[in-house]
Amino acid sequence: MYVHVNAAMSADGKLASRTREQLRISGPQDFERVDHIRAQNDGVMVGVGTVLADDPSLTLDDAERIAKRESTGRSPHPARVVADSSARTPPDARILDDTATTYICVSEAAPDDRVAALEDAGAEVVVAGEDRVDLAAALAALESRGVERLMVEGGGELIYSLFADALVDELTVYVGSMVVGGRDAPTLADGDGFTAGFPELELTGVERVDDGVLLEWQVP
Amino acid sequence: MYVHVNAAMSADGKLASRTREQLRISGPQDFERVDHIRAQNDGVMVGVGTVLADDPSLTLDDAERIAKRESTGRSPHPARVVADSSARTPPDARILDDTATTYICVSEAAPDDRVAALEDAGAEVVVAGEDRVDLAAALAALESRGVERLMVEGGGELIYSLFADALVDELTVYVGSMVVGGRDAPTLADGDGFTAGFPELELTGVERVDDGVLLEWQVP
Repeated sequence: MYVHVNAAMSADGKLASRTREQLRISGPQDFERVDHIRAQNDGVMVGVGTVLADDPSLTLDDAERIAKRESTGRSPHPARVVADSSARTPPDARILDDTATTYICVSEAAPDDRVAALEDAGAEVVVAGEDRVDLAAALAALESRGVERLMVEGGGELIYSLFADALVDELTVYVGSMVVGGRDAPTLADGDGFTAGFPELELTGVERVDDGVLLEWQVP
Repeated sequence: MYVHVNAAMSADGKLASRTREQLRISGPQDFERVDHIRAQNDGVMVGVGTVLADDPSLTLDDAERIAKRESTGRSPHPARVVADSSARTPPDARILDDTATTYICVSEAAPDDRVAALEDAGAEVVVAGEDRVDLAAALAALESRGVERLMVEGGGELIYSLFADALVDELTVYVGSMVVGGRDAPTLADGDGFTAGFPELELTGVERVDDGVLLEWQVP
């Protein structure tokens, strides 16, 4: 599976303020770019923290892109994927509307009643890992269901875990021209953090977009 | 006073790992650039956290730059400046060697014995603020002593405080091609963080340097 992490952060590396309020970091050109990348992928993934904070739908905006996918025999929208060890996704989350297939990746420790509620709400539940989602196993299960290209939109806990498990192939970051600050504000890569063996990237693109800059890296 | 904040961060906005170990984020081209900027400034400032973690000397490396400053009647090196509310700078810190003038900005709450020890070690102590250094007052005091252009090299607590007090004129950030991660790792701007009134920047430069990219912003 090819995994492309894409996110927008402030000049100081923050995805949101410390109150987790969603910020408008990028602009219209970048929203277009994100919709374009979504359309090229088989799945769009977020962590449950992002679902709880932002309640995103993760579907395509552009009617032409939807039509183009359908004309090539694909689903109108990419599948939605949530990494959700304890099955905390609310059954009424927008990500569970009937616009697209939604996979919720949970661990074996997720409470049965919550898993059942998600299945009732239409989710396809993927179980991988004991207490936390085993991301390599979950992604392999998704690949066997046809998700060969996966876009990851955050948050910082999921992005860190994917780097820690060496599952990332490409990273694109929109750096916005604002300062958010905050030692407790979510960053592009949170988790425990590396203390050695820091993942090295290869810078492949630098482009001005909106009032900020888009940085593109491959993971060798 | 003109205040120029310059720092190197990872692709995910970190200045160091969660263990505060100094990382080699940039390379030789960027070291040259930093030395060049230092030479153009009257003072180079860091927070006490940076002194305790890295024990930097903050002097110029390049003999030609030192000679050029001297030929125009300036001191060989810019002054060193530490924001240090409680006077925690160790009297044997490299920043207190006799290579250049060193200003330690403390609050009125700093213990007298530590302040005396710093003065004995050659520091010029600037008192501003009750419990924490009043940065606007401290910078005004420095300006009256001839520091008209100040470069700030970090860390994230000082950088955040300078933005919070609207004292920053220019921000340059080297973004390195590596991931550090860590919800507790120091970032470019820490502190409490903004929840509204986020400082807006104007992107004035984007340039590839070493294996990463240098971003330049003015603060309107």
